[in-house]
Amino acid sequence: GAGSDDDDQQDGMDEATRQALSDIDECQKELDELNEKASKEILQVETKYNKLRKPYYDKRAAVIEKIPNFWVNAIVNHPQISMLVDEEEEDCLHFLKKLEVEEFENVENGFRVKFIFDENPFFDNAELIKEFQLGPNTEPKSTSTLIKWKENMDLSKKQPQIIDARRKRGLEQKTFFSWFSDNKDPAADDIAEVIKDDLWPNPLQYYLTPDMEDGDDEALEE
Amino acid sequence: GAGSDDDDQQDGMDEATRQALSDIDECQKELDELNEKASKEILQVETKYNKLRKPYYDKRAAVIEKIPNFWVNAIVNHPQISMLVDEEEEDCLHFLKKLEVEEFENVENGFRVKFIFDENPFFDNAELIKEFQLGPNTEPKSTSTLIKWKENMDLSKKQPQIIDARRKRGLEQKTFFSWFSDNKDPAADDIAEVIKDDLWPNPLQYYLTPDMEDGDDEALEE
Ligand SMILES: [Ca+2]
Ligand SMILES: [Ca+2]
Ligand SMILES: [Mg+2]
Ligand SMILES: [Mg+2]
Repeated sequence: GAGSDDDDQQDGMDEATRQALSDIDECQKELDELNEKASKEILQVETKYNKLRKPYYDKRAAVIEKIPNFWVNAIVNHPQISMLVDEEEEDCLHFLKKLEVEEFENVENGFRVKFIFDENPFFDNAELIKEFQLGPNTEPKSTSTLIKWKENMDLSKKQPQIIDARRKRGLEQKTFFSWFSDNKDPAADDIAEVIKDDLWPNPLQYYLTPDMEDGDDEALEE
Repeated sequence: GAGSDDDDQQDGMDEATRQALSDIDECQKELDELNEKASKEILQVETKYNKLRKPYYDKRAAVIEKIPNFWVNAIVNHPQISMLVDEEEEDCLHFLKKLEVEEFENVENGFRVKFIFDENPFFDNAELIKEFQLGPNTEPKSTSTLIKWKENMDLSKKQPQIIDARRKRGLEQKTFFSWFSDNKDPAADDIAEVIKDDLWPNPLQYYLTPDMEDGDDEALEE
């Protein structure tokens, strides 16, 4: 370490070095202030553009509602997200009417993903929300709406069999609803990131372009 | 995939759906334009603050030159970078007079790390530069100054023995100069990222705080 080369560094430091270190510290303080100002300005730009984007996202949402199964098709065509969606889950996602990503006013503080459903035979909730709180002075934290499954429709109870069947077929063992309800490692929730940064900004490309590597063998079954 | 649920999606698509998809496409184009404008404004902020930071970095550099062994001590105290520095390399880094990180005018396009040396018994170069070109329309690429080792001082020739000795001691096998000259995977050069985003913005904290886990056993040897 440093000590072995400059034995006077900690205690017997000479006056010139002490002054130099103090001068460096001054520079660092000025740099820190500039960094903080830069972050604030960048945040302002992001907030401004989130507001400018909003009417287009709203208009898009209204149009998407006219297209049957828009979101479920975008999801099952998405290379990463499709890997999660088990067969019965796909049936359930046909009732997904609307998907929304809302960043917090201060985008660094987090975001939520909202899944808005039509009346459906699987659960009573109209909205399922997974929210990520990433604020600067807290540990990352996520929370999910508790799903009120209808009688005998609880897909999460079928998880052990599903996982077993998927393991045998060599598929990803996490499923869509197990991802939704899993809040163990919010800082490493890749699926939420992919939804926020890829599916949400442009779902049309996935809706239009079936994924050729999605492991969906329905075509073979039919 | 989408085809199995909406068999008319590709060809026999009804007029309302066709119109809806075209409306979504319009929204996406407006969103793309806004995203591009936002990126440009953020880049302008970053460029502005790089210019504002420059005089403080220049002043800091002038002061650092007055402190013997500032950079080698900051480096050997840094938890990640220190892992690379082999004993003979540390001797060589005592001649490191100046370290600089320069981002390109468009910060997204890349950066270079400059190591500026005093006359030294190891090599003839006054500057060793590793440069990362990360521009948007090219594959990431890095290049390094070819080191002109003096006779019998070529530390890279000692790599096989060094690597072998380090493996036996359970240490990281990459060394400082092998990292410097390695341009095989520029997009995953964690060390360059750590130098740019951690050591360079605030070396003082590392200079002042010896790393307790740096595996440097000089104290034991003395
Ligand atoms: Ca869209
Ligand atoms: Ca400093
Ligand atoms: Mg030493
Ligand atoms: Mg289907």
